[in-house]
Amino acid sequence: MAKDVGFTTMGDVLGDGAAPEIGIGMIGYAFMGKAHSNGYKTIPSMMYPPPAIPVLKSMAGRNEEAVAAAAKRFGWERHTTDWRDLIADDDIQVLDNGGPNNMHLEPTLAALAAGKHVICEKPLGRNPGESKQMWDAAEAAGLKHMAAFNYRFVPAIIQARKLVKDGVIGEVFHFRARYAQEWIIDPNFPLIWRLDKDVSGSGVLGDLGSHTLDLARFIVGEISAVNGRMKTFIKERPTAEDPSKTGPVTVDDAYMALLEFENGAIGSVEATRFGNGRKNGNRFEINGSLGSISYNMEQFNELEVYIADTEPAEANGFRKVLVTEAFHPYWENWWPHGHIIGWEHTFVHELHHFLDCIVNDKDVAPMGATFEDGYKCDTILAAIAESDANGGARVEISY
Amino acid sequence: MAKDVGFTTMGDVLGDGAAPEIGIGMIGYAFMGKAHSNGYKTIPSMMYPPPAIPVLKSMAGRNEEAVAAAAKRFGWERHTTDWRDLIADDDIQVLDNGGPNNMHLEPTLAALAAGKHVICEKPLGRNPGESKQMWDAAEAAGLKHMAAFNYRFVPAIIQARKLVKDGVIGEVFHFRARYAQEWIIDPNFPLIWRLDKDVSGSGVLGDLGSHTLDLARFIVGEISAVNGRMKTFIKERPTAEDPSKTGPVTVDDAYMALLEFENGAIGSVEATRFGNGRKNGNRFEINGSLGSISYNMEQFNELEVYIADTEPAEANGFRKVLVTEAFHPYWENWWPHGHIIGWEHTFVHELHHFLDCIVNDKDVAPMGATFEDGYKCDTILAAIAESDANGGARVEISY
Amino acid sequence: MAKDVGFTTMGDVLGDGAAPEIGIGMIGYAFMGKAHSNGYKTIPSMMYPPPAIPVLKSMAGRNEEAVAAAAKRFGWERHTTDWRDLIADDDIQVLDNGGPNNMHLEPTLAALAAGKHVICEKPLGRNPGESKQMWDAAEAAGLKHMAAFNYRFVPAIIQARKLVKDGVIGEVFHFRARYAQEWIIDPNFPLIWRLDKDVSGSGVLGDLGSHTLDLARFIVGEISAVNGRMKTFIKERPTAEDPSKTGPVTVDDAYMALLEFENGAIGSVEATRFGNGRKNGNRFEINGSLGSISYNMEQFNELEVYIADTEPAEANGFRKVLVTEAFHPYWENWWPHGHIIGWEHTFVHELHHFLDCIVNDKDVAPMGATFEDGYKCDTILAAIAESDANGGARVEISY
Amino acid sequence: MAKDVGFTTMGDVLGDGAAPEIGIGMIGYAFMGKAHSNGYKTIPSMMYPPPAIPVLKSMAGRNEEAVAAAAKRFGWERHTTDWRDLIADDDIQVLDNGGPNNMHLEPTLAALAAGKHVICEKPLGRNPGESKQMWDAAEAAGLKHMAAFNYRFVPAIIQARKLVKDGVIGEVFHFRARYAQEWIIDPNFPLIWRLDKDVSGSGVLGDLGSHTLDLARFIVGEISAVNGRMKTFIKERPTAEDPSKTGPVTVDDAYMALLEFENGAIGSVEATRFGNGRKNGNRFEINGSLGSISYNMEQFNELEVYIADTEPAEANGFRKVLVTEAFHPYWENWWPHGHIIGWEHTFVHELHHFLDCIVNDKDVAPMGATFEDGYKCDTILAAIAESDANGGARVEISY
Repeated sequence: MAKDVGFTTMGDVLGDGAAPEIGIGMIGYAFMGKAHSNGYKTIPSMMYPPPAIPVLKSMAGRNEEAVAAAAKRFGWERHTTDWRDLIADDDIQVLDNGGPNNMHLEPTLAALAAGKHVICEKPLGRNPGESKQMWDAAEAAGLKHMAAFNYRFVPAIIQARKLVKDGVIGEVFHFRARYAQEWIIDPNFPLIWRLDKDVSGSGVLGDLGSHTLDLARFIVGEISAVNGRMKTFIKERPTAEDPSKTGPVTVDDAYMALLEFENGAIGSVEATRFGNGRKNGNRFEINGSLGSISYNMEQFNELEVYIADTEPAEANGFRKVLVTEAFHPYWENWWPHGHIIGWEHTFVHELHHFLDCIVNDKDVAPMGATFEDGYKCDTILAAIAESDANGGARVEISY
Repeated sequence: MAKDVGFTTMGDVLGDGAAPEIGIGMIGYAFMGKAHSNGYKTIPSMMYPPPAIPVLKSMAGRNEEAVAAAAKRFGWERHTTDWRDLIADDDIQVLDNGGPNNMHLEPTLAALAAGKHVICEKPLGRNPGESKQMWDAAEAAGLKHMAAFNYRFVPAIIQARKLVKDGVIGEVFHFRARYAQEWIIDPNFPLIWRLDKDVSGSGVLGDLGSHTLDLARFIVGEISAVNGRMKTFIKERPTAEDPSKTGPVTVDDAYMALLEFENGAIGSVEATRFGNGRKNGNRFEINGSLGSISYNMEQFNELEVYIADTEPAEANGFRKVLVTEAFHPYWENWWPHGHIIGWEHTFVHELHHFLDCIVNDKDVAPMGATFEDGYKCDTILAAIAESDANGGARVEISY
Repeated sequence: MAKDVGFTTMGDVLGDGAAPEIGIGMIGYAFMGKAHSNGYKTIPSMMYPPPAIPVLKSMAGRNEEAVAAAAKRFGWERHTTDWRDLIADDDIQVLDNGGPNNMHLEPTLAALAAGKHVICEKPLGRNPGESKQMWDAAEAAGLKHMAAFNYRFVPAIIQARKLVKDGVIGEVFHFRARYAQEWIIDPNFPLIWRLDKDVSGSGVLGDLGSHTLDLARFIVGEISAVNGRMKTFIKERPTAEDPSKTGPVTVDDAYMALLEFENGAIGSVEATRFGNGRKNGNRFEINGSLGSISYNMEQFNELEVYIADTEPAEANGFRKVLVTEAFHPYWENWWPHGHIIGWEHTFVHELHHFLDCIVNDKDVAPMGATFEDGYKCDTILAAIAESDANGGARVEISY
Repeated sequence: MAKDVGFTTMGDVLGDGAAPEIGIGMIGYAFMGKAHSNGYKTIPSMMYPPPAIPVLKSMAGRNEEAVAAAAKRFGWERHTTDWRDLIADDDIQVLDNGGPNNMHLEPTLAALAAGKHVICEKPLGRNPGESKQMWDAAEAAGLKHMAAFNYRFVPAIIQARKLVKDGVIGEVFHFRARYAQEWIIDPNFPLIWRLDKDVSGSGVLGDLGSHTLDLARFIVGEISAVNGRMKTFIKERPTAEDPSKTGPVTVDDAYMALLEFENGAIGSVEATRFGNGRKNGNRFEINGSLGSISYNMEQFNELEVYIADTEPAEANGFRKVLVTEAFHPYWENWWPHGHIIGWEHTFVHELHHFLDCIVNDKDVAPMGATFEDGYKCDTILAAIAESDANGGARVEISY
């Protein structure tokens, strides 16, 4: 019958009534601000009993009007336009850093110095150096740290990893992944911060590629070498401030890479913002000596699994697994089987995990990504960029 | 480009700051208690600005321990084992009746008599007589009333209806639907209340069939005649209280019906709890003179649409529509396109709609189901049962 | 490992060199004439060693020019505009009757009287009386007879039947099928013979419904009662001879029926020529106590199979089975696995089976449909029409 | 409405009655021998009127018994164990070279020298040098030459190319392809000729990769640079002659490559024989500025097409196109729409095209692959291997 999936379940956490409050401070009020706020607010009743009750203390953002509106809407007690206020705030035990990539390093270091646990959006740094600084600081401070790779918290993906780790598909030969979006195909789409290397560090490589490479490490194992290529299809765009002027796109629109894993598997990965018709098209397939696993995030709750040695052989094939049974990861918290959950639930799981690790002094890894994982991911991203600069020549990974 | 889908959007509701509080009283603390509680709690921040702030005043249930735990978990101010306490409670303006089917009539009538708006789970009554009483009472009282057919609030289904109403698929020829679950295939599954006709009124006919028939009316139009058949595959089961004893299953395990619509379309519908491998397998397909629409709730956010007159003809076929764009129903409230939502979101939409109708004196119909719709659905269910009792002979519907 | 599927394989037939020639006479030169000619011509090299070498002796059709062209194209030795020439032709041992439905009875009886084996297109008669005459005559003559239900010869469908007969999905609860085409949605489509009851006997009921009902019997078992409804959406059409005039459509555009099987299963079936976007959309699903099977002819070589008791439970779901392995029905004759075959191959299999039965005196049933099956199918069709005439009242089947 | 797809249709060829006979000599009697024989035999009646009547003169193979059996089965007039007999045979105008890769060069050159047209299996040579010799010789002789890339003759793929060439998906950004098979995962699978570099030239790279790269050139355009990696998962296998002994696998089990196209598009391609559960899993996706195209050969007759500018926007998405309409490539020769064809039909189309080019002095290219295409494909294969030998460093393509 169903086996335990080896993941933290609610029965492990503190019993009802004993859940302490934890004060949260958040940088960012837009996309991730909304997603994380919703995640925190959902934990107490749906991930029950909660390990802690997150209290939304303060939200920081540069635009006073916007951050005030967001704070009010999502129920934050206060807001500020200066993230340093969060650091100085003794009511805050956790910094949730959801700012743009150039805002990851400084606030994170400051929060750690002030004794606060930190969860930081991905990619952790704009380069491995920044990530290393954050990882070192967090370890030195003895605080909990998490890189917010929320796709580690998709039930179907946790299940995929479990099948690989349990040997169900045997020795892994191939990992391949493609992450396609389409939102900047229009040449008139403006030069937002994500297209500016100074702010973002890289383009789709860091944004979507970091997800893919983190999942590769999460599911398959360490990457030992890469060959990478990057491409900017549209090199000049209207500036966000004045559409009558244009400026250079300084990041990649697409990247592709070939991977060697330490365990002998090979991989091919890519991401693009020019995948016409693909909205959030995040797919991967893994082939092993005993079976295969395939996933497409557009069918969020499904996993395709092939197990070669299945009876009767005449009726074997890829199984379309609805990862919605009570014994699937996190599903005991949700609904009867077949009753679909979605993208936002990854944040509920992720933030619950982080609070659980803080309150109960558990290890964030291996189920969650730590700053170490964030650093390693950034190291691979940098290797891909270095490879591209040399025409795709092989670059070995050394952390 | 994208057209307005003609549905209430948040811009229509009361502005920020003006949202009044509305006290909610809830009967039921299990499946629907959880789903509705989560719905209410999500409205203020995600369906923003909210038309009203629902305040979870009191939850009623027969099991003291269980209702106390649920009330605490979901943040209800108080709880009771006597639903009459909700009726007597002046803090409560809305009764949310999520009890078993035999608990729909009396509390609903009492709440209406006490001047409370009522949303009641489906099927509205155990028979059309009960439903008619509720509808008449609600109309007489001039209060808002809603039958909780939450699948009217799936964005893909609202979009499907819009395409039909806009004539995009032309004159409708066929409606066909199948709703398959699998949870009572095991002969040792016990005799729960849903298998007891006195409590439930009917089996899968009322439970899943009511959803299908409501959607048929919602999307295609009024039903004028039916031929129905019902089947109980397992006629005796262990009692829930004492598994060593058995009792008779007094409801249907599966039903099938053929439909005539007033507009000349025909339909075939069915549901079963013996659909092995189908977890919440709710599907329909509509064929019209200009196109077709197909939906499978396992791909919650997708709609398949065929439009015959599409260029180039060599590249025509069913379109797999991700109903996740900002211009799709309710999506402006959620996430960037492609970022899947799920089943629980139907309750957020539904309860938001009801609150909006109450506060802003809008009509619950046609987008939401009223007690009139509940009554009409029950009338069709009764006609199917009557037809089955006569070997499937044609029964005309008259309300 | 793979089990034998219990079907005639080539190893059973006459050895190399010993294959006798069998003379074929064919009525019809259009759609079925082409498909059957191609089938006969493919047998000797691809279904190797062949049980017999079919020799295409003579083709009969009413239009001299057209039948001459078809006979030349497909390599028939001669042609005629009078089917009686085939009966009188001593070179012909097998009559392949692919004429319109009103041409089934007389030539078939004449061929049987002349000692020729007969394969006749479906539906066998325009009514059960005609079919019964043919069946009785064939049995009295001691000749081989086959009703050309070619979908019994789709490898995936043979495999589906095998899984049911082997008990892999347990006791059958549900059979449901939908066969949708779209070719007469245009109101200007002319009144061809298929829309004339005198020639065709019925509309989509006999044309596509006969396929469905034969498969229901083939896979699930005997049908004991039906409730049926029929519908003609467009009641008047331009005549084929003079588009400026119209005439009445005298057959059904769509039918729907509810079934009772002798073994306790229930069924819902339907077909339409108004299924916009569905080209040859022939689907069925079977739910049993241990599993389920689903098929969609648009994915010709695939079968979806669910087996409830599969390990690991976390990775269970409907399996997408490519029915293209050497151990699958008929596949040893074709290509390496995954190398898709198609619709025309059903005729190769079917005609091979019939020749094998003739040469080796095997039973056409149960793998092929006999005139008995043709008669029983027509009886069910008639019962559906009778039911419809009585508003869908239940009609018991008695053969 | 439907536009002409710009491909040779039957109306272009010689009229009925005028079709000359062309004598065919074939090297090879196994997989390709069967597929080509079936193709030739199907042309006269199904690709009607045929440009020529292929006469199966003589089949050559090294195993006397096997080639004799195959020649008999498929209707070849004679057979030989010495391919030189085909060259010397004046009845033969066309050499069909379906031998292993090390048998491509010498017989092809000999046939050309003897004035015979040649169609040769892919990859054309074991290296670009061999291919160049063949191409030069064919051009010098003024004879028709074809590299048997049969996937150019899949209707869905021709349609895909047509959509790209017509600009329907705009400027191409991405081409990605994966071709996965699974047949040598078992470490006990023996060392057949395909795993021996001396005979085959390369492993999956030349076998499946050549298909992919030819399609990339066929659909998208010329490739200007590559980065390639190759992998041999199982380096030692039992010999075919004596399973108690092992020998080294000298070819790749998998390859991956990143591509630059001359038109600015980029590509990622790969193939493997270790894709567990993938039988003949040949997929590609193309993203352009106006739309996208996706294909999976397991759904042989389907093409997925996205066109960004489609009304209504609420109902846009990838279209599942059944490439089975009469106006689709080659479909006028086959069946009514929706009636699936399969893999073997590619050979019918391919061989028909070659005969048509010979008889009517048409250009084999661009719809068919010439020896020039074979040479260019081999050049890319060699560049990938060279890149791999240098750790995946970029290699520019120069023909």
